[in-house]
Amino acid sequence: MGSGWTDTARLETFSDGVIAIAITLLILEVKVPHVAGKDLGDVLRLQWPSFAAYVVSFVTIGVMWVNHHHMFRLIERSNHTFLILNVLFLMTIAFLPWPTVLVATYIHDPDGRIVATVAYGATMVAVAIMFNVVWGYAAARGGRLLIPEVDRATLPRVSRSYLVGPTVYGAATLIALIDPYISLAVFAALALFWLLPRSGTRQAGTLS
Amino acid sequence: MGSGWTDTARLETFSDGVIAIAITLLILEVKVPHVAGKDLGDVLRLQWPSFAAYVVSFVTIGVMWVNHHHMFRLIERSNHTFLILNVLFLMTIAFLPWPTVLVATYIHDPDGRIVATVAYGATMVAVAIMFNVVWGYAAARGGRLLIPEVDRATLPRVSRSYLVGPTVYGAATLIALIDPYISLAVFAALALFWLLPRSGTRQAGTLS
Amino acid sequence: MGSGWTDTARLETFSDGVIAIAITLLILEVKVPHVAGKDLGDVLRLQWPSFAAYVVSFVTIGVMWVNHHHMFRLIERSNHTFLILNVLFLMTIAFLPWPTVLVATYIHDPDGRIVATVAYGATMVAVAIMFNVVWGYAAARGGRLLIPEVDRATLPRVSRSYLVGPTVYGAATLIALIDPYISLAVFAALALFWLLPRSGTRQAGTLS
Amino acid sequence: MGSGWTDTARLETFSDGVIAIAITLLILEVKVPHVAGKDLGDVLRLQWPSFAAYVVSFVTIGVMWVNHHHMFRLIERSNHTFLILNVLFLMTIAFLPWPTVLVATYIHDPDGRIVATVAYGATMVAVAIMFNVVWGYAAARGGRLLIPEVDRATLPRVSRSYLVGPTVYGAATLIALIDPYISLAVFAALALFWLLPRSGTRQAGTLS
Repeated sequence: MGSGWTDTARLETFSDGVIAIAITLLILEVKVPHVAGKDLGDVLRLQWPSFAAYVVSFVTIGVMWVNHHHMFRLIERSNHTFLILNVLFLMTIAFLPWPTVLVATYIHDPDGRIVATVAYGATMVAVAIMFNVVWGYAAARGGRLLIPEVDRATLPRVSRSYLVGPTVYGAATLIALIDPYISLAVFAALALFWLLPRSGTRQAGTLS
Repeated sequence: MGSGWTDTARLETFSDGVIAIAITLLILEVKVPHVAGKDLGDVLRLQWPSFAAYVVSFVTIGVMWVNHHHMFRLIERSNHTFLILNVLFLMTIAFLPWPTVLVATYIHDPDGRIVATVAYGATMVAVAIMFNVVWGYAAARGGRLLIPEVDRATLPRVSRSYLVGPTVYGAATLIALIDPYISLAVFAALALFWLLPRSGTRQAGTLS
Repeated sequence: MGSGWTDTARLETFSDGVIAIAITLLILEVKVPHVAGKDLGDVLRLQWPSFAAYVVSFVTIGVMWVNHHHMFRLIERSNHTFLILNVLFLMTIAFLPWPTVLVATYIHDPDGRIVATVAYGATMVAVAIMFNVVWGYAAARGGRLLIPEVDRATLPRVSRSYLVGPTVYGAATLIALIDPYISLAVFAALALFWLLPRSGTRQAGTLS
Repeated sequence: MGSGWTDTARLETFSDGVIAIAITLLILEVKVPHVAGKDLGDVLRLQWPSFAAYVVSFVTIGVMWVNHHHMFRLIERSNHTFLILNVLFLMTIAFLPWPTVLVATYIHDPDGRIVATVAYGATMVAVAIMFNVVWGYAAARGGRLLIPEVDRATLPRVSRSYLVGPTVYGAATLIALIDPYISLAVFAALALFWLLPRSGTRQAGTLS
C-alpha cells in the first residue's frame, strides 16, 4: 500500500450503488398517463416506446454491470487515477436515463427522433469508450492493476475484444442519421444479443 | 473459478441496491395534494388508494427481498447466464412502482381500474416467474449453483413450492377481469399473508 | 443455521440502502422556485420551511440510522420474522419524505398546517414504535438474537430507554393539535438534541 | 469496543450509498425539453447549462467520494459523535443537486444568476468545511480514530492541506458577487483540476 495502492472493495460498492440507482431510476421516466375520456388500454398501447426504452436501457445497463463485474474479478488494486477514471465511467452510465426519455418522447416526431436517437447512441458510445479507458488503465504496463493469475500474453487480445462495444454502438449511432428506426432496432438487438449465453470472446478476460 | 464461476457477493450487493431503491421510490409516487379551499384532512382521506398501494407494494417488494435473501443462502456460486437472469428478475421488481401508481390513479375510474389492476397483476406474475427462473437455473442439473449442504433429494419439492407465487398472482390477475376490487383485495391479503411467521413450505428451501 | 437462523450482513446492507435512499430523496422535494419578476433571493428566503424541513428530517433519519447501527452491533443473528419486522421498520422510514413535504407545503396555511404536522408526527411515532418492535423481538426470550457479550440483566433497562422515542414523539404530535408551530419546534429541538454527544442512557445498549 | 468504539464498515457502506444516490439523482434534474415547432437540436444546444452543471457537479461529488475513500483508509474506528459528524457531512453532499439545478435554471437571468451561484458556492463551502470537521475529529488528540501506521508527526501538515478546499471554494463564492460567470468557470476549473493525477499534497494523508 506504500505508494497509494488500495484494494477495490469500496470502488466496487460505490459502482454497484451508482449503477443500481441509474437502472432503477429508469422507471421514474415511464409516466402514468392521464386519460381524458379515452380508453386506458388504448393509451397504454400508444405508450409502447416508453416500455421498449425501459427494457432496452435496463438490459443494456444490466449487461454493463455484468461486464464491470467480470472486469473487476481480474483487478486486485486501485489508485487515485483509477478511482477517477471509474467515476467518469459512472458519469456516462448515470447519464443514460436522460437520452432514454428523449427517445421515448420524440420517437413519434419526424424531426426530433433523429436528434434523440443520435443523443442516445452517443451516450452509449461514451459508456463503451469509458469502459475501454478503465480497462486500458488497469491492463497497461503489463497489467499493473491485475491479479497475478491473468495471463499477460492474452491482454492485447482481451483489450481488442472490448473495442467491439464502441465500434458497434458507433455504427448504430451513424445509422440514426439515415434512419432512426433501424438504429433503435440495432440497439434493441444488441441488448438482446448481450443477454445470450456465450463463450469465447466475451469470456476472454476471465480466468481460463 | 476456472470455468467462469464466481461467488455471489457482488450479485447480492447489486440486487440489494436495486430492490432497496425500487422499494424506496414508491413514496415519490404518493403525491402531496394541492388543496384549493378544501380541508386538507378530507383531501388526504380521499387519497387512501395511494397509501394502500404504498403499503401493499412496499410489503410485497420487501417480502420478495426476504425470499431472495433466503434463496441466496443456498447458492454459493454464479456465472454469466445466472447474472443475466438475475438482472431480468430485477427488471421486473424495478418496474413495480409504475403499475402501483397506475392502480392508485385509476381505482376511482370504472373503466381504467380493470386495465390498471391487470397491469399490476401482470407485473406481479412476471416477478414471480422470474423468481422461479432464477431458482430453476440455480437448482438445475442437480443444484449446480447450490451449496453442498442442500439435500438434492428435496429440490423438486422446493421448486414446486416456489410455483405457488405465479399461480396465486395469476389467479388474482384473472379475477381483475371480473372485479378489480376483489383482485386488489387478494393482492393486499397476499401481502399480509407473506408477513405472517411460518414454517414448513416456505422454509423448505432453507437448511434443515 | 439449522433452524432458519442466519447472520445479519445482508439485512444491514439492505437497511443501509433503504435509509440512504430515503435520506437522499429529501432533496428532490426541495423545489427550485420559478420567479416571475421577483427577486430570487426574496423567493428563496420565503422558502425557508423547505430548507428547515430538509435539515430536520435529514438529521432525524440520520440519527435513526446511527441508532439502527448501534442496535445491530448487539445483534448477531436473524430469522424470517425478524427480517419482516425490519422491512416494516424500513417502510416507516421510507415514508418520511412525504410528510416532510406536506409540512413544508402547508406551514403557511392556517388549517392545513395542523393536519400536516399531525401526519409528520404520526410518521415519527410509527418509526419509533417499529424501532421498539424490532429491538423487542431481538431482545425477547433472554435476548434470543443478541451476541453473548450483552449482559442479559440490563435488557429491561435498555428496552425501557428505547421507549423514550415513541413517548416524546407522541407528545410532540399531540401538541400539534393545539399549536403546530410549537410542535414543529419540538421536532426540530429533538433532532438537534439527538446530535449532541452523550453517554449513559443512549449508550446503555452498547457493550460496557 | 469497551467504550463505544466500533469499526467503520457500516459507516462507509452508508456513506457510499448516500453519495452514490446524490450523484445519480443529478440526471433527474436535466429535463427533457418539450419543443413546440422548434428544432430539437437547437433546443438541446440552448440547454447547455444543464449539461455543464451535470458534469461539474458529478465530477465534484465524485472527487469528494474519492477523498472520503482516501480519508477512511487512514481511519480504523468510530464512535457516536463521529457517526453524527459524518451524517452532517453527508447532509451537505446530498444537498448539492438543489443548487446545481438553481444555477442551471438561472444562468440566463441577470439578477438570479448571482444568487444562484452564491447558493452553489455556499453549498460547496459547507461540504468542504464538514469534510474538515470529520477529518479534524478523527485526527484530534493524536489521531484518536486513525490506524497506527499513520505517522502522527505529519498530522498537522495533512490537516492544513485539507484547508485548501474551503479556502478556494470560499474565494470562488465571493467572486460570484462580482461576476457569476467567472465564479462558475472557477468551479468548473476546480472540478477538472481535481481530476488530474497528482502526487504530494493530496497524497499527504495516505501512507508513505
